[in-house]
Amino acid sequence: MSHNSFGHLFRVTTFGESHGLALGAIVDGCPPNIPLEAQEIQGFLDKRKPGQSRFTTQRREADEVKILSGVFADRDGRQVTTGAPVALVIENTDQRSKDYGEIADKYRPGHADYVYDAKYGVRDYRGGGRSSARETAARVAAGAVARKVIAGVTIRGALVQVGPHRIDRARFDWDEVERNQLFCPDARAAELWADYLDNVRKDGSSIGAVIEIVAEGVPVGWGAPVYGKLDADLAAAMMSINAVKGVEIGAGFAAAELTGEDNADEMRAGQNGPQFLSNNAGGVLGGISTGQPIVVRFAVKPTSSILTPRRTIDRFGKETDIVTKGRHDPCVGIRAVPVGEAMMACVLADHFLRHRGQVG
Amino acid sequence: MSHNSFGHLFRVTTFGESHGLALGAIVDGCPPNIPLEAQEIQGFLDKRKPGQSRFTTQRREADEVKILSGVFADRDGRQVTTGAPVALVIENTDQRSKDYGEIADKYRPGHADYVYDAKYGVRDYRGGGRSSARETAARVAAGAVARKVIAGVTIRGALVQVGPHRIDRARFDWDEVERNQLFCPDARAAELWADYLDNVRKDGSSIGAVIEIVAEGVPVGWGAPVYGKLDADLAAAMMSINAVKGVEIGAGFAAAELTGEDNADEMRAGQNGPQFLSNNAGGVLGGISTGQPIVVRFAVKPTSSILTPRRTIDRFGKETDIVTKGRHDPCVGIRAVPVGEAMMACVLADHFLRHRGQVG
Amino acid sequence: MSHNSFGHLFRVTTFGESHGLALGAIVDGCPPNIPLEAQEIQGFLDKRKPGQSRFTTQRREADEVKILSGVFADRDGRQVTTGAPVALVIENTDQRSKDYGEIADKYRPGHADYVYDAKYGVRDYRGGGRSSARETAARVAAGAVARKVIAGVTIRGALVQVGPHRIDRARFDWDEVERNQLFCPDARAAELWADYLDNVRKDGSSIGAVIEIVAEGVPVGWGAPVYGKLDADLAAAMMSINAVKGVEIGAGFAAAELTGEDNADEMRAGQNGPQFLSNNAGGVLGGISTGQPIVVRFAVKPTSSILTPRRTIDRFGKETDIVTKGRHDPCVGIRAVPVGEAMMACVLADHFLRHRGQVG
Amino acid sequence: MSHNSFGHLFRVTTFGESHGLALGAIVDGCPPNIPLEAQEIQGFLDKRKPGQSRFTTQRREADEVKILSGVFADRDGRQVTTGAPVALVIENTDQRSKDYGEIADKYRPGHADYVYDAKYGVRDYRGGGRSSARETAARVAAGAVARKVIAGVTIRGALVQVGPHRIDRARFDWDEVERNQLFCPDARAAELWADYLDNVRKDGSSIGAVIEIVAEGVPVGWGAPVYGKLDADLAAAMMSINAVKGVEIGAGFAAAELTGEDNADEMRAGQNGPQFLSNNAGGVLGGISTGQPIVVRFAVKPTSSILTPRRTIDRFGKETDIVTKGRHDPCVGIRAVPVGEAMMACVLADHFLRHRGQVG
Repeated sequence: MSHNSFGHLFRVTTFGESHGLALGAIVDGCPPNIPLEAQEIQGFLDKRKPGQSRFTTQRREADEVKILSGVFADRDGRQVTTGAPVALVIENTDQRSKDYGEIADKYRPGHADYVYDAKYGVRDYRGGGRSSARETAARVAAGAVARKVIAGVTIRGALVQVGPHRIDRARFDWDEVERNQLFCPDARAAELWADYLDNVRKDGSSIGAVIEIVAEGVPVGWGAPVYGKLDADLAAAMMSINAVKGVEIGAGFAAAELTGEDNADEMRAGQNGPQFLSNNAGGVLGGISTGQPIVVRFAVKPTSSILTPRRTIDRFGKETDIVTKGRHDPCVGIRAVPVGEAMMACVLADHFLRHRGQVG
Repeated sequence: MSHNSFGHLFRVTTFGESHGLALGAIVDGCPPNIPLEAQEIQGFLDKRKPGQSRFTTQRREADEVKILSGVFADRDGRQVTTGAPVALVIENTDQRSKDYGEIADKYRPGHADYVYDAKYGVRDYRGGGRSSARETAARVAAGAVARKVIAGVTIRGALVQVGPHRIDRARFDWDEVERNQLFCPDARAAELWADYLDNVRKDGSSIGAVIEIVAEGVPVGWGAPVYGKLDADLAAAMMSINAVKGVEIGAGFAAAELTGEDNADEMRAGQNGPQFLSNNAGGVLGGISTGQPIVVRFAVKPTSSILTPRRTIDRFGKETDIVTKGRHDPCVGIRAVPVGEAMMACVLADHFLRHRGQVG
Repeated sequence: MSHNSFGHLFRVTTFGESHGLALGAIVDGCPPNIPLEAQEIQGFLDKRKPGQSRFTTQRREADEVKILSGVFADRDGRQVTTGAPVALVIENTDQRSKDYGEIADKYRPGHADYVYDAKYGVRDYRGGGRSSARETAARVAAGAVARKVIAGVTIRGALVQVGPHRIDRARFDWDEVERNQLFCPDARAAELWADYLDNVRKDGSSIGAVIEIVAEGVPVGWGAPVYGKLDADLAAAMMSINAVKGVEIGAGFAAAELTGEDNADEMRAGQNGPQFLSNNAGGVLGGISTGQPIVVRFAVKPTSSILTPRRTIDRFGKETDIVTKGRHDPCVGIRAVPVGEAMMACVLADHFLRHRGQVG
Repeated sequence: MSHNSFGHLFRVTTFGESHGLALGAIVDGCPPNIPLEAQEIQGFLDKRKPGQSRFTTQRREADEVKILSGVFADRDGRQVTTGAPVALVIENTDQRSKDYGEIADKYRPGHADYVYDAKYGVRDYRGGGRSSARETAARVAAGAVARKVIAGVTIRGALVQVGPHRIDRARFDWDEVERNQLFCPDARAAELWADYLDNVRKDGSSIGAVIEIVAEGVPVGWGAPVYGKLDADLAAAMMSINAVKGVEIGAGFAAAELTGEDNADEMRAGQNGPQFLSNNAGGVLGGISTGQPIVVRFAVKPTSSILTPRRTIDRFGKETDIVTKGRHDPCVGIRAVPVGEAMMACVLADHFLRHRGQVG
């Protein structure tokens, strides 16, 4: 991953700021002859779109995606990829940049304001500029293309923890994820979290969360030792999402407490290759997929845009206080779910092509 | 990171198998005029070397490093880097490959045996071949070069959890790390863990661990949005180490339970730029270093090489049991400490050069 | 260079087809605080723009560039780069895709029609799709940004040969290049070539050309052995331009006929470093700039879009004839001049940053 | 291509200096299950080896290659690649570095001495250090592996011009190349050139040359628009060879003099896809292979190591004269033949894997 690109063969480059003219993604290396309509991409963008429930920012963005290049009608009249770069553009429409006078000079704690200024000597302060979570719309668009490349793989995400509240694993139900506004797989937890988040919102506060992304249908063999490991690329991909502070695969940090007897996933003879008796590995061994579901979790910190005044300094080094007004998410973790799915899709699409390149 | 290379400007490529002739690293892009002697590298290798205590594998390897290229005597007679690739080679001496008859055909659960066979159709089964932790010697050698490139930065690592046992943060003492064989920063914990690990070893079992790596002296501004984020590259680097299943930065997974008020690190005016009142960010905001210590933790699973028989299949798909005899670590997390330090050094050296390239 | 991107630190990714909605370039890794207005880019695009003289295609394109991201007003109100990706988009306006019925099925000899179909199984045949010289507009836009990054370097290009007719080196005058429609540095040759090309055009034929690009003001030291050589990257950059079949540096192919005595550029003591007594090296030794002008030449084949019927096959493998009607350049080499300048600028900007990264 | 690596999926990294301990190549991304013995590689190294005729340097190097990693005995006992990096090492044996006293301080005109010093501030002056043609031994070793990856492709090279003397195309005979010490495909020219080069050698002079490399059996479809073009990568690969000043594909610079009627290769229906009636394209259209032979030529300048004193400066900026004593090639173009073949093989192997990755 370099600057604003990631992936090797399925390579995504994104651009755009929160309050600029537009943002977008260039998907390079996409295989040809994959049916692709803007509408399919739109479906995933709508899932991430702000302003859809009281739990997310009230900014109103249509998030309408246009495909500028890389597709063409095949002989049957279907629009398919041509192998050329697929350019996806989303215009910004609800920018309200007048709100951002105060943060032009003050550094919001927990935000990237200070480091951008210190690094670059100039900063698009409107809504966080390039460091805004708005950039993730471009990831979701690219992820929608990636899903088409690995059509046999099912990628789903869920919110599994909000603040101190975790789901009950026994009640995990993927269907439930679609039924509530929190992408929560546990119906009972969804209700409790809704109340909890209402309070967070009313307090002008915010809270962290944990997201789980699962990919099913990945065959054994994707991934590449030793620095192109599937899990290393997944870790980078998830950690590159705004506000993410931790990533784990399979048993993750809990593996630190396991013995060798408990941790290693035993195998029995299955129909097609081994049947594993557990999945502490999270579907990855030695950096290569095992054929089991790939299970990744990541932790999202609470947004630092809150109504309680915080101590900070301004760009002249003077001490001051700041309250971040404006439209923000009480729990940015919610909208991180489709983003995490998109990153999983992009990493898998890339490794699918890399594997096919080396091994055939 | 691609296949067996990582980094962009400070780029490391490693090669070699556990029981092959040699392993090594090519460090490309190293700045010129950096004093570099084999001895300096050797110091770090000795720290990682097996067979140094009863808690690590009894394999005997001299792990002697040779510099094949990229250095030359400057006008003062000091050996310095020339800007050409620095090739580092370590010969394997204690190979005992006769031990590996059984695992030639059987897949050890929790190891990469099955996936390598499934992916490549051929596998160097001797000691795990390319997937052996022995590869990390090459990382440590490269990391020693990286440290010289970022001479103002201090990188230290420690074991902070073994199985269910965590250090007492109040007793954290970097000096202590050098005094015990476990790289434990808490003297009392070190004693308890020694007993605990003796039992694990006697039982022929193994246990996981958590390692913490801290880099001090990193200036504000290293890192690159949005896919070349410093923390994204650190996550990939740590996750690429054998047996690692989770990575976190700063507050990490605990950030999921924090409110916006508690999480954001407030700032006051300091001598040189801001003084942060806490470091939940772990020294990274928006993918860019803040000037605070960079704090990374990663979880290492227990090695799957244990004396209790485990159920598995062989390469013909037949069900069988396996006991992994041979010389193994009861807690591979111990030797992961110098490896984690090396990866931190490599990532920082790369970002130092990348920052200098873009910003000057 | 990979697929649709080139450069390492100054990295350009282009997208778009001849008759799609738009084409453009993402410039990633651009240093911050560089003043950049769309107008400056427009100036270079206008130079390349079709339809400006009777010697180039009569397609009418405004080639108006928009900057979608990566710039912001600095404290003085100037628009500058922010270090974030600069997205440049040019909409296609004069598409007339109705003309392209015949070539949907027939493969034009000398064009990429057949190979695209064979490789991808699908092809945007309108105007050559991705393989159209129209893509070079995006290069010119990116090159305009690159020039700002290396503000001390002057890059100029000229047509030095059209068909069998070469300029008289003794009459080489950079000022003359601006005065005629052929970018010819020799006033007398410009007149002769104009007549010659009128005949080529009237005959419905086309002719090849040689372009020379010179960069002055490049300091000693840019470039990187041994596969990142400055001349290797220049060769790739020029060869990647549509219709280019040869590239040479300095004495180029003529060096094959020189003796060691005649070829090596002798040195005398100069004001700042050596003064070279000749420049057969073309400003590059061992892949590194010498401080002398960098001199690159490349040969452009004649366009294959001509009015004489040519033998070919269609996509069903059936033999047929083809005449490429439509709007084409009698000598595509003319418009290759600003494109070659742009590629020189991009390669130099990249190597400037790479050098600064490694050496400081 | 970055610093000392080239290729994307078939990625070669080389290291080593002329008079260091060793040089070598790491081949990463090699497909598994390819039979590979050191002897096969040795065959190609022997072709490039110095000291084999009176026309090449009298330095004596065994150039014996060792495979350190990446191979293993498959179930049939054959040694095959495993998919892990193949490390190839060649020790330097005949170093005689005592000869190099004078050039420690003086800059040889036409050599990289000055630019290395200016760029890096330090320089391994022994035999040119990293910039020595000795580095090409590592390329030849890597190329031998590449050939195995694209086993259906035949790659051959020949010297087609020495100084002002060209071969007679009508007498071109590949078999002849093996029969003379100049890799000359024209028996009569070979004799004349031998006399000519004897005189060059006796005069203590040197002369340039042109090499032609042809790859047959490359299927249609390898290559990737628009910056990963097959011919762009070939141009970079050839230009990266020491002393190369020009590269051309197919008709090359002669295409500048052709009309569209003469240049475009017409097509008729063939057995498998089109039959081309000529090959001015040199097997590449739009950056993608056409299925015709790929034909590349490159010009090599005369070595600057000659016995006539040349004017130069030393590292203190003082004017002086230099005569390069030692053991050198009167025509380095001869030994460039196997090097050019190797680079062709590496580029093709990489594009084969890249094509398979994207298109399947």
